[in-house]
Amino acid sequence: MPEHVDGGKQTVKGFRAAAVDSGLKKGHNADITLIVSEGPASAAGVFTANKVKAAPVLLTRKHISGGTARAIIANAGNANACTGDPGLADAAHTADLVGKALGFSPESVLVASTGVIGRRLDMVKVSEAIPQLKATLTPDGISMAAQAIMTTDSFPKTSRFDGMADNRPYRILGLAKGAGMIMPDMATMLCFILTDIHMAPDTLQQILSASTEKTFNRISVDGDTSTNDMVLILANGMAGNRVFSEKDHTRFEEGLTGVMENLARMIAKDGEGATKLVDVVIKNALSAEDALKAARTVANSSLVKTAFYGQDPNWGRIMAALGRADIEMDETHVDIRINDVQIVSGGLGSGVEAEKRAARIMTQNEFVLSIDLNQGNHRDHIITSDLTHEYININADYRT
Amino acid sequence: MPEHVDGGKQTVKGFRAAAVDSGLKKGHNADITLIVSEGPASAAGVFTANKVKAAPVLLTRKHISGGTARAIIANAGNANACTGDPGLADAAHTADLVGKALGFSPESVLVASTGVIGRRLDMVKVSEAIPQLKATLTPDGISMAAQAIMTTDSFPKTSRFDGMADNRPYRILGLAKGAGMIMPDMATMLCFILTDIHMAPDTLQQILSASTEKTFNRISVDGDTSTNDMVLILANGMAGNRVFSEKDHTRFEEGLTGVMENLARMIAKDGEGATKLVDVVIKNALSAEDALKAARTVANSSLVKTAFYGQDPNWGRIMAALGRADIEMDETHVDIRINDVQIVSGGLGSGVEAEKRAARIMTQNEFVLSIDLNQGNHRDHIITSDLTHEYININADYRT
Repeated sequence: MPEHVDGGKQTVKGFRAAAVDSGLKKGHNADITLIVSEGPASAAGVFTANKVKAAPVLLTRKHISGGTARAIIANAGNANACTGDPGLADAAHTADLVGKALGFSPESVLVASTGVIGRRLDMVKVSEAIPQLKATLTPDGISMAAQAIMTTDSFPKTSRFDGMADNRPYRILGLAKGAGMIMPDMATMLCFILTDIHMAPDTLQQILSASTEKTFNRISVDGDTSTNDMVLILANGMAGNRVFSEKDHTRFEEGLTGVMENLARMIAKDGEGATKLVDVVIKNALSAEDALKAARTVANSSLVKTAFYGQDPNWGRIMAALGRADIEMDETHVDIRINDVQIVSGGLGSGVEAEKRAARIMTQNEFVLSIDLNQGNHRDHIITSDLTHEYININADYRT
Repeated sequence: MPEHVDGGKQTVKGFRAAAVDSGLKKGHNADITLIVSEGPASAAGVFTANKVKAAPVLLTRKHISGGTARAIIANAGNANACTGDPGLADAAHTADLVGKALGFSPESVLVASTGVIGRRLDMVKVSEAIPQLKATLTPDGISMAAQAIMTTDSFPKTSRFDGMADNRPYRILGLAKGAGMIMPDMATMLCFILTDIHMAPDTLQQILSASTEKTFNRISVDGDTSTNDMVLILANGMAGNRVFSEKDHTRFEEGLTGVMENLARMIAKDGEGATKLVDVVIKNALSAEDALKAARTVANSSLVKTAFYGQDPNWGRIMAALGRADIEMDETHVDIRINDVQIVSGGLGSGVEAEKRAARIMTQNEFVLSIDLNQGNHRDHIITSDLTHEYININADYRT
């Protein structure tokens, strides 16, 4: 049976990667990575909705519009955002340098950046890094790539799916960075997905967009995007499949969504300073919009998130968040559970004993907060984390 | 000249107040207060927009609809919210007890509560407190009332205005509680305003609503209201003014807005754990809506607020917040200043020296962050504070 694997063998047929310490990010860790496909790959991408778009976002969106790509170069430490025309020239120059080094057209090179906003990229460091990256490209390099794109992440994030299409085995390997999306605020999320399946760019784009909606857009508020967010997928066709049955198509979609779901959960879990992963589920909302709005409002409430940290089933804060979520609701119909323990029934507390049992569940690292509005039959969820002292530590002196 | 005074003589002609320790709130401080007018007073109120409304909100909204009132009873420690019909009966019973004790109709008694949600009010404690309150009513009691409604507040909040109308002196005295409105979240705000001016209830309501919009609704997000928020005003007419010139009307409106502005700033300053008061000003937005949306998004950004705490002029976070504010903007037109120091010009950083000077300003307790969008001619602002370790301390164990 095909399955999702976190960790394990981090290779995909026809892809090589490398990562080096260029000095763009403080400290002595790899901070720039190059991922290369042996042949031209179908390419698709999803980009930030923020009106302030970083130079690499503008460039990569243009380069990917042709539907194929050969390489991704990504750096941490500097976002190359709010850098104006010089910043755009730096991103284009980076693609040129990679293209020249590898013999590709610059348009086949995708560029991604994450880090501090508003500072010019040090192009001397970038241009010195490229020959080193080229020299150390290896099929095993993808786990190093996942390390090199980390900023405030506390662990590298990869997830893998092995499937069959047209009786040929294929693999999907995803790597991501991001921590802090769990606040109602921006913090860059980058995700690169590599697969050896053969698939047309249009189909790939369709599946990627749908999977992004179900996964990365269900951690925190998707409107609250950073200047640099991007999800890229390259499919180089080396699996050798030709036709695609409808079943193969569905399996690929499930596989990709699973990989992205795993990465999204890792990002939420790695929320800056977070100690708990909470799945906020809304049941029986009057509309799909209401279900999502309610889940977002509760999942992003600072008071609810600090109560998670305090392991306190403070359902009054949850009710108050629902009340301001701009949804159809009747407080006397609301039921609330922590895992299987009901703490609110018809808008009223279920008593001290129930709260004690819920508090015990909240000592765990992961639990489900489910809210039944009893208004209709729509369901949605948002994965969030707690708000802790460590969040303040990380963000009060991120630049210093 | 009439002027706004914080502190000073806390009396208003024809009003008496008292506060006692009923045991409704933990600790040995006054936690219930009664404010009484000698004669019937014109009354107006503004109430929470939250769909989950506490019992005292539902009751007081009904009682005030007649346009007159004689007394306000308010307690801290228990919000009497999410308590269903029994909670509504408790609020009505409280008004009954006060009415009986003082010889008023229950409808002339306004009830307010703040504290933990979802627990029944201890009516034994309430009924035992009322005779004590009645026995200790005094014209000097209003400063004690301001103390008795505190929850996580670190100081009592009062503000005064002395004016003239129809050649008669009058006074406006406001008291408020609230701390934590500065987060994009709910935390109850109560404000009681007492004045001896003579004014019709309709006019009073009109002025109160307008002043609330300009003051309390300019700290944090006004959509993010608690279950219990209310602003009440009683005008007992003891100043003896009869007619009102247009100038008198304007002066009263300015005086009231000034009192409420002072109280709103105190609430923002007392934001849970806050160390800094920041006025986020948006200039030259394309529309009034855009100006307010931009100010709110920046003022409520957790990353911007932690940067205030870190005294870091991290303008990239400000640009990213603007980019997701859903407003008309062009990043190349944006100018940003900390007080008079420009740190962004046309969307680009003004350099290290400017940032150093801005960082020095940010060591102060109060400063202005002004953002010029250069899109139109609309202006708005939101008063906010920084996000600190202490916020987490306060809210992770508020109930315990």
